[in-house]
Amino acid sequence: MNFDSIFSAAQEAFLFYKNLPGKEKGEFLDTLAETLEANRAEIVPLAVKESNLPEGRINGELGRTTGQIKLFANMVKEGSWVEATVDPADPNRAPLPKADIRRMLTPLGPVVVFGASNFPLAFSTAGGDTISALASGCPVIYKAHPAHPETSRKVADCIHQAILKSGLPSALFTHVEGGIAEGQALVKHPAAKAVAFTGSHVGGMALFDLANKRDEPIPVYAEMGSVNPIFCFPKKLAANNDALAKAFVGSLTLGVGQFCTNPGLIFVPESQAKTFENAIAEELKDIAGAPMLHPGIAQAYYDSIQFLESREELRWVKVADPKHLINGSTALAEIKAADWLADKVFQKEVFGAFAMMVVYQSEDELAEIAKNLHGQLTITVWAEEEELRNQLFLINLLEEKCGRLLFKGAPTGVEVGYAMQHGGPYPSTTAANSTSVGAHAIKRFARPIAFQDMPQDLLPDALRDGNPLGIWRLVNGNYEK
Amino acid sequence: MNFDSIFSAAQEAFLFYKNLPGKEKGEFLDTLAETLEANRAEIVPLAVKESNLPEGRINGELGRTTGQIKLFANMVKEGSWVEATVDPADPNRAPLPKADIRRMLTPLGPVVVFGASNFPLAFSTAGGDTISALASGCPVIYKAHPAHPETSRKVADCIHQAILKSGLPSALFTHVEGGIAEGQALVKHPAAKAVAFTGSHVGGMALFDLANKRDEPIPVYAEMGSVNPIFCFPKKLAANNDALAKAFVGSLTLGVGQFCTNPGLIFVPESQAKTFENAIAEELKDIAGAPMLHPGIAQAYYDSIQFLESREELRWVKVADPKHLINGSTALAEIKAADWLADKVFQKEVFGAFAMMVVYQSEDELAEIAKNLHGQLTITVWAEEEELRNQLFLINLLEEKCGRLLFKGAPTGVEVGYAMQHGGPYPSTTAANSTSVGAHAIKRFARPIAFQDMPQDLLPDALRDGNPLGIWRLVNGNYEK
Repeated sequence: MNFDSIFSAAQEAFLFYKNLPGKEKGEFLDTLAETLEANRAEIVPLAVKESNLPEGRINGELGRTTGQIKLFANMVKEGSWVEATVDPADPNRAPLPKADIRRMLTPLGPVVVFGASNFPLAFSTAGGDTISALASGCPVIYKAHPAHPETSRKVADCIHQAILKSGLPSALFTHVEGGIAEGQALVKHPAAKAVAFTGSHVGGMALFDLANKRDEPIPVYAEMGSVNPIFCFPKKLAANNDALAKAFVGSLTLGVGQFCTNPGLIFVPESQAKTFENAIAEELKDIAGAPMLHPGIAQAYYDSIQFLESREELRWVKVADPKHLINGSTALAEIKAADWLADKVFQKEVFGAFAMMVVYQSEDELAEIAKNLHGQLTITVWAEEEELRNQLFLINLLEEKCGRLLFKGAPTGVEVGYAMQHGGPYPSTTAANSTSVGAHAIKRFARPIAFQDMPQDLLPDALRDGNPLGIWRLVNGNYEK
Repeated sequence: MNFDSIFSAAQEAFLFYKNLPGKEKGEFLDTLAETLEANRAEIVPLAVKESNLPEGRINGELGRTTGQIKLFANMVKEGSWVEATVDPADPNRAPLPKADIRRMLTPLGPVVVFGASNFPLAFSTAGGDTISALASGCPVIYKAHPAHPETSRKVADCIHQAILKSGLPSALFTHVEGGIAEGQALVKHPAAKAVAFTGSHVGGMALFDLANKRDEPIPVYAEMGSVNPIFCFPKKLAANNDALAKAFVGSLTLGVGQFCTNPGLIFVPESQAKTFENAIAEELKDIAGAPMLHPGIAQAYYDSIQFLESREELRWVKVADPKHLINGSTALAEIKAADWLADKVFQKEVFGAFAMMVVYQSEDELAEIAKNLHGQLTITVWAEEEELRNQLFLINLLEEKCGRLLFKGAPTGVEVGYAMQHGGPYPSTTAANSTSVGAHAIKRFARPIAFQDMPQDLLPDALRDGNPLGIWRLVNGNYEK
């Protein structure tokens, strides 16, 4: 397994591609979105077959995929994302004249992207990681997820069609199939400059450790999931018991619980626990088990459930149906906050439609919970506004523990926009200062460079006098266009 | 050695301090700058005594230190640095209504800062790392550099005066003295959220490895120096031989060569090598050895020189004077590019006023050099504009290898401004996407958080409707104020 030729072609493609105007990079991405849409009729059945996800969901996911491609296309066509900053020279400054210094983001070079099993399109071959890397100016060496090889090949083929149509070097994107050894070899390759990954904690940390032990350590942007706790307050629950039970169960069981933002933990006040539990049990009755992504994931789900069933602290509101080869069956267990606090094992993510309902007795216990909570992608607070007025300290603590804090609705359904933050403190990711969804995802694959006294005709357009690209720039500390 | 009480006080101070308005944080920093100025007469002699650096330099360094404190004070008073981003709700969107999502940067929590020996003020106790962390909203646990304990205690005292005067919790800053064991214990402490370090490669990588092996890995912003190559082109050298020799020697010997941006490597075309070498030798004649920061640094300098003297590829233009307990003596050796390329050991930084002059024969050789160059804080290109027109490929390669690319002057003298980038690809730093000098340094100590459907009166001011702080915000993808 030697990836030298792949990386050397990617590096060559990089030196050409990174200097293309943003407009051309954006047009290439638009062409890619069109190509994927044109191949919808072929892509969707493949992804349905390989993921066991329903056609409606996969159709939606393809729309989301092309939608985020268009977001990044527009961003790079517009161009302000490079954070152009100009500190003009001051030859008369005393005691020493001031040089002309201009700064912008520049792409890192070839990056390695790993596909995710739970989003065969939106977080896979032409998913957010690949697209934000291509948008920033980086070639992508893509390690296909073995759970959906045909889908991946088909999408890779669309990417190459778009590359060809745009007259770009084909090494801008390379599709690599294989297992763990291939993935490790890609991360270890000296020419790799960054890694993006969405998946399990074990997988993400293995890559993180590998990347840090390289002769040249490189950043690993691993999104490793979380349990996405929901904190319920008594008045809110009392006034909306059934609606919140429905919202919770809907979010818990969406896609058989196989979302990174799936709520696996809900904190409920003792006063409302029984009523809320009954409403949840009622909702759960109608949710049939459904096929999980692949048998290995179903096996892991039932193994986790079996382990938890051995713990006497848990009282089961709904037990999982007997293990089925592939179907995931919803399950819900209740635990006292004091017991939950006593063992960190109860914070471990169970990938699938399982949730733990933690019953708390006091606000002091809530604060204790917040202090002990692991880092999360999201935390949701269900409370009446009046209940929050005295909870500034708690909210403060919760902010420390998540990337996104919600006050309405459920954490599933990650909006692709400018303000989205999909990333949070460890262990939810290895890089809390980054997001893998939304506009800022592009910044993972770039770094700042400053040019000092560079001749005008050598400067990138983004930094030239007169702002020929018409982008937002910070000039002498002020934004202007 | 137990730092639990220090970190728990820092964490408590954090939860209070992070929510203070930027205006109050800025006023605290202004008070600190004033306090340092008011204590100038005491601080300067201590730093002179403990660093062996001349009074003029230390006076200038204190000015630089208070100057950068004021830059960060102004930044946090103004407030736009938090990158406030607002994606308003759209309740009418089909098929699903769009939530209100608002994003900003939030401080990480208590951070550990290590002082640098070569800047007892500007990169030490109240230096750039401490100040950018305090500006972002993070308390600092500061590990004093053992080379200047009295200076460090005095400056720490000024920081505590300013904290007291501003009515802030004293745990906002803690001064810790000790050796390697203390430093390691601080980095390993579970409540530490980030580490900033300026110093040797060995020291930086030890902290980096330690931080990555924690139960919760944390970012290490280590600036580990570089050799800051200068690339000379024939016409430029021919036209400015003596002036460039003077500029080079001035930058090489500034502060006895003890700057992170000290140029230890210069690439010279064969046609001009002899003339340029003569001019350099002439300049070097007048530079007397001067005391280095401490005897250990002088020892390491002479050890490196001794090792290089054993290598037959090098021809010595100026040998170091016989080893002196503390004085650093300038030295310059010449080497053929082919020999230099053959062994990476010639890229190793020698901390002090030593440089290697590498004589190249062709532009192909220059490209080979650029491809093989390690990551650097800075690269300087001395060329006539006409000589650069055909060098786009080379400049492209050089961009990959540095954080700052200069076309005039020398790399020493790092401007503190908005566009400065003081950080580069590994091994010059462990985090090429960050800078330790200039406005962006603050971002090392913050991470993004998104608030979804948060009630207005709970939202931080930076994100509220009507933009009460009057800061620059990205609203629906457009900047506005």
